[in-house]
This record gives sequence, structure tokens and C-alpha cells, in this order.
Amino acid sequence: MPTYKYPRPSLTVDCIVFGLDAELELKIMLIKRDIPPFEGEWAIPGGFVRMDETLEQAALRELQEETGIQNVFLEQLYTFGDLGRDPRDRVVSVAYYALINLVEQKVQASTDAREAYWFPLSKIPKLAFDHDQILQTAITRLRSKIRYEPIGFELLPRNFTLSQLQKLYEIIWNRSLDKRNFRKKILSMDLLLDTGEVQHNVSHRAAKLYQFDETKYLQLKDKGFNFEV
Amino acid sequence: MPTYKYPRPSLTVDCIVFGLDAELELKIMLIKRDIPPFEGEWAIPGGFVRMDETLEQAALRELQEETGIQNVFLEQLYTFGDLGRDPRDRVVSVAYYALINLVEQKVQASTDAREAYWFPLSKIPKLAFDHDQILQTAITRLRSKIRYEPIGFELLPRNFTLSQLQKLYEIIWNRSLDKRNFRKKILSMDLLLDTGEVQHNVSHRAAKLYQFDETKYLQLKDKGFNFEV
Repeated sequence: MPTYKYPRPSLTVDCIVFGLDAELELKIMLIKRDIPPFEGEWAIPGGFVRMDETLEQAALRELQEETGIQNVFLEQLYTFGDLGRDPRDRVVSVAYYALINLVEQKVQASTDAREAYWFPLSKIPKLAFDHDQILQTAITRLRSKIRYEPIGFELLPRNFTLSQLQKLYEIIWNRSLDKRNFRKKILSMDLLLDTGEVQHNVSHRAAKLYQFDETKYLQLKDKGFNFEV
Repeated sequence: MPTYKYPRPSLTVDCIVFGLDAELELKIMLIKRDIPPFEGEWAIPGGFVRMDETLEQAALRELQEETGIQNVFLEQLYTFGDLGRDPRDRVVSVAYYALINLVEQKVQASTDAREAYWFPLSKIPKLAFDHDQILQTAITRLRSKIRYEPIGFELLPRNFTLSQLQKLYEIIWNRSLDKRNFRKKILSMDLLLDTGEVQHNVSHRAAKLYQFDETKYLQLKDKGFNFEV
């Protein structure tokens, strides 16, 4: 067993995964803990960092072990280190977040002998540890980030309508947006490819389908272009 | 000596302090290391987190011990945990940054038996560990944050001219800005208080002095107002 000259905090990672389902409902992945503390309570997936892996590798490994989710792009959110946030020990946790599309990525909540489940943001249970605070930090980051960077496309299917895109912003910001202004701003960024196709099997008038032009985005981003919505 | 069931990384904090001097030069505080590794090399102030202090408390304590700087507002920057970033051990470091005004705060680089010195951003020496990367991350954050939030006022003296404010943005972004557009944008945010005074002892025509209206800023921020420059 390792012995050190001075005491050391434990180091963990936690992963908030946001997913958008076919009904454009925004969800996050939670797991039910099967060991103390907080046994039987819901928590953000995560666990201890091993000595031979980076923080991001630890986060990806824990996410896959606990939820089956893999190949996601993680972004570091914040590091939580308040005293007493874990009843067992001094534990510092580096939190990450990811955005995925639930329809196309066919994410399974299959697991490591634990329940893993997609919760709508409107129906999040009380969470273990300080995970309510971690989740709130992630939601605040998502709200602020989507204002200045076109990250919403990561949540949408490859082909989407302008209405779907607007709905996504409305869900994240929890307020309605003016349709004409929204379209004008989005189209003026010149980041959408018109696929030439329209929706299938819809009861209303079929809307045009667009794709996000990532190449164009990266070019414009390099030039310091402003993507504010 | 503490013994644990599994090995634990060491946990440190590092602090990047940006300061603006009387000549509007942007500087950062560095310390010269007096112990191995990297003995005699310049580094960002920082050190190990104790068990009875939060990450932010650790950062404030280390900053004061090593540089004499105190009472600054720290914001968490990023957590650096790559393997091999410290030759001694697996060390994960939570980095913070602060913005201060060097003229009014009379910051002393007095120290704990170490050299501490304000380096102009244009003359940063090669740094110890991965501190070049940490500093670059801080500069990128400052550049991006000042675009959307009026944080430049933390660097300026209490009373400042519009030219000084513009110069600050030009220094941080490393490009010149159109004077008329800049003034229009800044004044339209309605965040400046006209002090009714002008500069003293200047060879050119004395310019009006302004103050940042923090109360107004907090009110507008609550309403989701856009402060983009």
C-alpha cells in the first residue's frame, strides 16, 4: 500500500453527458450508486483517477464502464474541491461534460451492474454528493457557451430543420425566441449547408433540411468570426 | 506518514496573476524556483494543496507566501493532469488566474526567500514544468473573456480615459482597434460613469476620466445584457 510523506486528497473525475432525444427533449445520463456512500441514490457517472491515465482518459473510462457511452468529445468543466463534499475522505473531482445526439448515436445505458438512465433535465432527482452543484455548473456553461459558439449542432441529428435548431436554443435557454430574428442571425453566420432535401413523414408542411458546415466553421473561427446568437 | 489503499496523485494549485502597470504594460508575476526540480528557473507561483483548505484557499495562501500578493479575486482556469508534467511524481494542478492593477494596489513582490518579479508578457522566459502551456491557456482565456465581459476594468486604475481602455483591449488582443467603433460600442453598454474630471499633468489635451459602474453592470448582467466588444 502506498505511503506518502504528506497526506493527499483523493482525485476523481465526473462526467455530465447531455443528450437530445427524438422529441427534442434535453436529457442527462445518471447512474444509481450500488455502494455507500449514497447507496441507491442517483449520481453523475465518475470515479477515481488511476496513476497511468490522464484526467480525460479517466473520465472516458469511467463513462464507458458505468454507462456504456463511448467515443464522445469531452470538455473540462470545472474542478470541485470543497471540504466535506465526500463523507469518506477529502476528494477533489475534475468534472467534464459532453454533448451527444441520442437518436443517431444509439447510446445504450448498459452497465457495470448499475442502473444507468437518461433523465430529462426537467425531472432530475436529488443527486448524491455535490452533484446538484456540478450539474448546475454544467447547465450554466451550456447556456453561456451556446450563445457564442455553435455547439448546438453536436446535440442535433446530422440533418435538421431551422425549427428544430430554434427549439434547441429555446430549451437550453428556457425562453422563446423570435422566429424571424433567430433565422436571420443563424443564416447570417453562413454555417448551414442546404441539403436540398425536406422532412419526410410529417403532418405539417415539410421543412428544409440543413447540415452544419464544420469546415466553414473552423475557417471562420480561425479568423475570429463572431458566432453570437 | 499517511498510507492509502490505492496510489494517489499529488495535488497542487498554480496562480497566474495579470497586472497592468502605469505605462499600460501587461505583466505576469513569476517566481524563481529555489529547489529542484527546475531549480533556478522561473515558474508560475503555486504549491501543494493541504487537506484542510479548499483549492482556492490553497491558491491564495501559496500566492501570498511566494509573492506577497493578497486579497485578489481568483477565478479557476483549468486543471492540468497530463502524465509526466512533473518529473518527481504524478502531479495534477488546478490553475487559477487573477487580474489586478499594479499602480493602485501597490503590490510588492516580496517573498519567502525566493525571487518574485513582474514580467512583461512580451518578455516571458522559458518556464518550468508545463507552465508555458498553463500561461498560454490563461492568455487565451483572458482574450476570449474580455470580448464578452467587461473584465478589463479590474486591470485599470479606478479613473481611466477611453484611450487607456482601448489600449488595454489592443494589448490583450495584440491588434489595433478603430477608435470611433470602439468608443461607440463601449459607451452604448452604458457601464461608464463620467467623473466630471479630466487627466492632470499630461502634455496632450487632457482627456475625460471615467469610472466603471459595477452596480449597473451587475443589474444589466442579471438581465442577460450583451457586453460584447
